[in-house]
Amino acid sequence: MDSIAYVNGSFVPLSEAKVSVLDRGFLFADGIYEVAAVLDGKLIDNASHLARLARSVGEISLALPESLARIEEIQKELVTRNNLVSGLVYLEVTRGADTGRDFAFPKGVKPTLILFTSAKDIVNAPSAKTGIGVITVPDIRWTRRDIKSVALLAQVLAKQAAAEAGAGEAWMIEDGKVTEGGSSSAFILTQDDVLVTRQNGSEILPGCTRKAVVALAEERQLRVEERAFTIEEALAAKEAFITSASSFVQAVVSIDGKKIANGKPGAMTDRLREIYVDFARKTAV
Amino acid sequence: MDSIAYVNGSFVPLSEAKVSVLDRGFLFADGIYEVAAVLDGKLIDNASHLARLARSVGEISLALPESLARIEEIQKELVTRNNLVSGLVYLEVTRGADTGRDFAFPKGVKPTLILFTSAKDIVNAPSAKTGIGVITVPDIRWTRRDIKSVALLAQVLAKQAAAEAGAGEAWMIEDGKVTEGGSSSAFILTQDDVLVTRQNGSEILPGCTRKAVVALAEERQLRVEERAFTIEEALAAKEAFITSASSFVQAVVSIDGKKIANGKPGAMTDRLREIYVDFARKTAV
Repeated sequence: MDSIAYVNGSFVPLSEAKVSVLDRGFLFADGIYEVAAVLDGKLIDNASHLARLARSVGEISLALPESLARIEEIQKELVTRNNLVSGLVYLEVTRGADTGRDFAFPKGVKPTLILFTSAKDIVNAPSAKTGIGVITVPDIRWTRRDIKSVALLAQVLAKQAAAEAGAGEAWMIEDGKVTEGGSSSAFILTQDDVLVTRQNGSEILPGCTRKAVVALAEERQLRVEERAFTIEEALAAKEAFITSASSFVQAVVSIDGKKIANGKPGAMTDRLREIYVDFARKTAV
Repeated sequence: MDSIAYVNGSFVPLSEAKVSVLDRGFLFADGIYEVAAVLDGKLIDNASHLARLARSVGEISLALPESLARIEEIQKELVTRNNLVSGLVYLEVTRGADTGRDFAFPKGVKPTLILFTSAKDIVNAPSAKTGIGVITVPDIRWTRRDIKSVALLAQVLAKQAAAEAGAGEAWMIEDGKVTEGGSSSAFILTQDDVLVTRQNGSEILPGCTRKAVVALAEERQLRVEERAFTIEEALAAKEAFITSASSFVQAVVSIDGKKIANGKPGAMTDRLREIYVDFARKTAV
C-alpha cells in the first residue's frame, strides 16, 4: 500500500513524491538528511536528530526552509497519516532546484524538504537475537564525515560489499583504526569491561544513538573511553556492537568471518540494548 | 522558454522533468554524470565522454539502462528538439528508485537515465579573453575521484568559495600539490615551455578535454609532462590554464590574488584554445 510522503509543503502518495531533475540533491548531493526511529507511534531521541540536522546544514551554509519545530510537526503528521507504529522517518533537505546547473549556490531558490516513512520492527529484529557479522573495508570517504550529507556513494559501496559477503555492516578502516560502520557507530567492550568507541571529530558522524548510549552507560557507572580502536583489539574484545537510529544497539559477533568471543551477542550488549529501548520509549515524543 | 529534457524514455518539458524522492541519485548520490559540449549543433568529443561514462558506471557496478549508441541518439535528439547551437548536454544515470531506502544495491530496479541541455556560447565566453582568477582550497574529496559520480558536495563548496572570492575556479590542494579544479583540469606552462598537468590516477578525474589537449599538444611537438605541481610552480610559470567540456581551454591569470606572469592570458594558452576549438568543430558529431 502506498504510504504518504511530504514534498515541499504537500502530503502526497510516496509513488507520486518527486523532485526536479535540477534539484541539487540529485545533481550535486548538495543536501543533508536525518533518520529518526519511531516506537509506539512516537519519535525517538528526535531533539538530538534535529540538533544534528541544524548543525549539518549550518556546516554547508544551507538554510532550512522550515523551523525545527515545524519539521517535527511534519514528522508527527506523517507518522499519524501512515499509522506508523514502529519504523523510521526519513527527512532530506537540499539546496533546491535552480533553473540550470551551476556548482555555486543558487540565489533566491527555496531549499527542498522531503520526508517519508517506512515500517520496521526495530525492537524485534531477528538480528538483535543472533547478532551480525561485519566486514572491513578501507574508509575512502571525504574528510568531513561529521556532516550528514547525502553524498553517500562510498557508504553504498561499503554496505553492498557487506551484503555480498553475507555480513550486516561494513566497518571502515583508516590508518589502521576503525572509523565507523557504513551507517552506524562502532563499539567494543574490552576484556576489562571498558566500552570503547571512536571520539567525535571530522573522521566520523556524531551518532545520535552513539551519544545516548554513551550517556546511558556513564550514568550506570560503566567506564567509557572515546578513542580509536583496531580490528585486532575488536577481535580480542569481550563484546562488540553497533548503534544507529535504525538498529538501536546491535551485537556484532564476527569480523571478516572471525568470531568475537563465542560468536554470540554479549551480556553487556543485550543489557545496553534493553536500557536504550527503555530510554527510547520513555523519552519518545 | 522551457526546454525539453529526457527522463527514462520520455521527452518532457524541463519544468516537468522529475524523479522519485526514492531515486538513489537523490538519496545516496548513487549515480554518474557526463557533460558534453555542443558547437554548431553538434556534440564535441562525445566518444570520449561516453567511454568515460562506461568506465565510471563499471567502477560502481551500475548497468546502463541504454546502450552508448542509444544514449548518443538521445543526446542528438535533445540538441535537435531544443534547437541547441552552442551549449551543453548533461546526462545522469543513477541506480534507480527502489520501493524503500536501503544502502545495498536494489534488485530488479531499472537505472534512471535523465538528460537536459543548456545554451552557452563557450567559444565567445568573455572570460576566454580576460582569463580567470583561481583560489586554492584543501582537497577534501573521497579517494575515488576518477569516478565521475554525482557525490559533488566537496566541489560545490570549493566552487562556492571561489565565487565568493570573485574567482572563476577553485584549485584543490592535497599534500602540497594541485590535484585539479572543482570542475576542470589544471595546467601550467613552465618558463622552459613544458606543459605540465597532473597524471591520471584515483586522485583526479580523467578529463576528456585534458586528454584531447595533451594529445593535440604532443602532435605539435610540444613537451608535456604529466605530473603533480605546486602553487609555487604555478605562480612562477609562464602561463596557466584549465580545461573542461564547458570552458574548453581557459586561461588562469591569478592564484589567490597573485598574478601569473603579467596577469593576462598567455600566447600558448590562446593558441591551444584555438587548436582545441578547431579540433572540436572538425570532430563534432
